[in-house]
Amino acid sequence: MRLASSVTINEVGLRDGLQLESKILSVEEKMTIYHLLKRSNVPEIEFGSFVHPRLVPQMANSGELFAQIQENKEEKLVALIPNLKGLERAKEMGVRTVNFVFSASNTHNLQNVRQSTQESLGTLKTLAQYATDHDISLHIALATSFGCPFEGTIAPQHIMNITEELLQYEIKRITYADTTGMANPKQVYDLMTQVSAEWKSFEFACHFHNTRGMGMANINAAIEAGITIFDSSLGGIGGCPFAPGATGNVCTEDVVHMLDEMGVQTNIDLDGLIQASMKLKEILGHDLPGQVVKAGKSTRRYPVPS
Amino acid sequence: MRLASSVTINEVGLRDGLQLESKILSVEEKMTIYHLLKRSNVPEIEFGSFVHPRLVPQMANSGELFAQIQENKEEKLVALIPNLKGLERAKEMGVRTVNFVFSASNTHNLQNVRQSTQESLGTLKTLAQYATDHDISLHIALATSFGCPFEGTIAPQHIMNITEELLQYEIKRITYADTTGMANPKQVYDLMTQVSAEWKSFEFACHFHNTRGMGMANINAAIEAGITIFDSSLGGIGGCPFAPGATGNVCTEDVVHMLDEMGVQTNIDLDGLIQASMKLKEILGHDLPGQVVKAGKSTRRYPVPS
Repeated sequence: MRLASSVTINEVGLRDGLQLESKILSVEEKMTIYHLLKRSNVPEIEFGSFVHPRLVPQMANSGELFAQIQENKEEKLVALIPNLKGLERAKEMGVRTVNFVFSASNTHNLQNVRQSTQESLGTLKTLAQYATDHDISLHIALATSFGCPFEGTIAPQHIMNITEELLQYEIKRITYADTTGMANPKQVYDLMTQVSAEWKSFEFACHFHNTRGMGMANINAAIEAGITIFDSSLGGIGGCPFAPGATGNVCTEDVVHMLDEMGVQTNIDLDGLIQASMKLKEILGHDLPGQVVKAGKSTRRYPVPS
Repeated sequence: MRLASSVTINEVGLRDGLQLESKILSVEEKMTIYHLLKRSNVPEIEFGSFVHPRLVPQMANSGELFAQIQENKEEKLVALIPNLKGLERAKEMGVRTVNFVFSASNTHNLQNVRQSTQESLGTLKTLAQYATDHDISLHIALATSFGCPFEGTIAPQHIMNITEELLQYEIKRITYADTTGMANPKQVYDLMTQVSAEWKSFEFACHFHNTRGMGMANINAAIEAGITIFDSSLGGIGGCPFAPGATGNVCTEDVVHMLDEMGVQTNIDLDGLIQASMKLKEILGHDLPGQVVKAGKSTRRYPVPS
């Protein structure tokens, strides 16, 4: 099993994770989590999004949050943007890295952002120019890369074609997202191997959900295929409106624990992460899907009963 | 990613799964689950154990259960046995396959069965002779093969040594069990590759728990290493007394779903399995850890909202 020596974690709990929570967190509550993440040495944090507050009220305070945390420059702070307006708002706030999300599935994209996939690629042209002009790093998250709840299978060739089109623009990263947790390890391995082989030096990442229990296996399969950047969510929060009761994003502390155990470096303090997850549970007021918080690390020793 | 074309599932829910449930199921309730498993074409079912009823009251009706189900000969019916007494009882009932469990970790074995690992190997000698004399297939489950909650790391060489010793006897299968969910995919891949390479034609299996979220990734890693037989538990029930709140065995329907998605045959009817899991939830009266029951299969299509 050939694994990378190190992996970069992009923590998306404050954005993708909180987006579906009924409780809207205050800036103070988000700052509490942010500080615990930062103290744990998490290298990248997707802290929020600049979308219309009516659509995603949980993210309405993203600008205020960024204003409070931007004194710290050690980690990469990423904001999701849905369009040029969002990018302009991010730029005004001084955000240096943005993540533009659209779907490989045309039907899903129409549902999600009222644009066809081709229209979103048109939007991207404008965004890429603006980002370049203002020295902002532009990431792309390609939703439903491994399957769509409406269309079903997404052909690997379709992903290859979109990737090729994306690479015409000045973008820094492409994250292939398994938006509704449909990917399986073999599919992930095959597609990520193909992508990595075709464009060797580009920065590819993966974003998995654990909706059907395959999230951690997909992470491992992607690492085997050469991917070394992963989105994950503290406590495993997040999820998918199509699967009520199902778990959400892959859980950051569970991912870091697995990587630690396999000797793959993340440079993250797992104990600090576990504390952050426990705090998040306290703030949200309900149980979270993460496992390591409940079971303790594999290295935990129990006293022998006498 | 090299995967086997087919995998055999040994369903352990009725034994390992129910063993830690506070509710003790009646023979009728177990028969309900058994029939749903059988109808789903599950090839092997560990239906119970012949241990002292005071120690595991959940399994006290295993003999009665077997008497009711033994008219069906299509699938392999396995009983756990802790000692010669258990084996004799299994033989009396007409059980054709038994699973003798002991721990690679000396400390864990002392705690679990009041014998050192070496003493259990001594017991095995007697069991193997008895099984041969009575034409009973003898399986071995080697608990704590990937780590012990008391001793910590279990050296791969220790597992190799025990395996070599085991193979002196007439046994049909060795199942390496990650009793408390400590294994990681790299460790599984490395150890299973070593074992498979050393003894090419022998029947090895794995038994994983999802205690720290790595169960499905471990299944995948083991398949990559050439293992094609897995224990799993309907609904993901079971678990470990050392990790309250943690999930249990890898969930059968989630495993079969993942294998189906990857094109690895199990010959099991997944829809039937999902029904069985829903019935089990109803009987137990609490939520089960399995994901696919909640989210539906990856192939599930949603109508496009108008």
